[in-house]
Amino acid sequence: MKRSNISENVIHRLPRYLRKLEDLAAKGEKRISSEKLGQQMGLTPSQIRQDFSCFGEFGQQGYGYNIDSLSKEIGHILGTYQDYSAILVGAGNLGGALIKNLDFIIEGYRFLGAFDVKPELIGTDIAGFPVYDYATVADFIRENKVDIAILTVPKDMAQAVTENITGAGIRAIWNFTNKELDVGDSGALVENIHFSDSLLVLTYHLSEKDEERK
Amino acid sequence: MKRSNISENVIHRLPRYLRKLEDLAAKGEKRISSEKLGQQMGLTPSQIRQDFSCFGEFGQQGYGYNIDSLSKEIGHILGTYQDYSAILVGAGNLGGALIKNLDFIIEGYRFLGAFDVKPELIGTDIAGFPVYDYATVADFIRENKVDIAILTVPKDMAQAVTENITGAGIRAIWNFTNKELDVGDSGALVENIHFSDSLLVLTYHLSEKDEERK
Repeated sequence: MKRSNISENVIHRLPRYLRKLEDLAAKGEKRISSEKLGQQMGLTPSQIRQDFSCFGEFGQQGYGYNIDSLSKEIGHILGTYQDYSAILVGAGNLGGALIKNLDFIIEGYRFLGAFDVKPELIGTDIAGFPVYDYATVADFIRENKVDIAILTVPKDMAQAVTENITGAGIRAIWNFTNKELDVGDSGALVENIHFSDSLLVLTYHLSEKDEERK
Repeated sequence: MKRSNISENVIHRLPRYLRKLEDLAAKGEKRISSEKLGQQMGLTPSQIRQDFSCFGEFGQQGYGYNIDSLSKEIGHILGTYQDYSAILVGAGNLGGALIKNLDFIIEGYRFLGAFDVKPELIGTDIAGFPVYDYATVADFIRENKVDIAILTVPKDMAQAVTENITGAGIRAIWNFTNKELDVGDSGALVENIHFSDSLLVLTYHLSEKDEERK
């Protein structure tokens, strides 16, 4: 596989492709044409062919794509077989809900546990995973070479926690704090979840409809 | 403002622009050039000029954009001043955490309350908002002309709930169930939150780094 020259736009479409292909596989489908895939995803066939050509050849003219091998390859490209380790930092409402609801965190990663400052949470467990004292998080990251921190601390703690965990060698932060994080020269990767963005897109389309009615 | 011909890609960038401009305004900035804005957002100046030109003229050659009027206009385009009403359907861990953590839901919308089937939740409140019996949700939507449902029910309930609330006239669903919803011919809008997508993007970049090391 060649990763070079894959644009951020393509990378952001890969998880969508993966979801779609897994849905199709679950329905027993074996092959799909770029035309049909495009129809179902709201993309043009040429865009799909272009996206997939970025990382090799999967289609055969006139036969479409082999769903199974294409989804495996996209999974490989996305790093889903790397067994990365993850911890939750901030075991409050949102963090707890994520771990309880999002099976893919538990299934797709080596989830090692949660950290919090609250005495009443420390020593308990969330969905079977231990909640440790936040004071020990830096040592834990160093000892276990933790790859990913899921950051669900309050906004005003976000930067201080970021400095602590990047200093200990965390490699990536999945950031739910709605605060822009400065990782200094640690080289840590950050992916931000901005819930509000998708709600605003919905509101945009609602008000677009309202206008059409006028 | 003209909404026609605004591509989905531009629409999805608008919330990011809005966040950035609000950050700049909070720092006391008054104007910004497309060059500086592009640097800070990882976009080219020409892309920014093109995006903003879709909905009118905000920049003045050599003077940059007026941050305050540009962010107001983007807010208008996104429909943030429309006072849409919203309810939560599914008052479990995730739904409860969203309402407790995401102030913008409460601030930007007329949030009317939550619905659940669990007897132990009905009659309680979440962050000061009442939890009603799910059996009454259709009547509530009709009587209050509710615009948006935040859907946080279990995956296997998602489609039945969708049919119930679209039948009652809900106009938009903000879907956290990780299940593709069929809204039939109701015309309801759906915006899906797929947490896993952004974690996969993070994993992609992690494995890209691992490969560079080899």
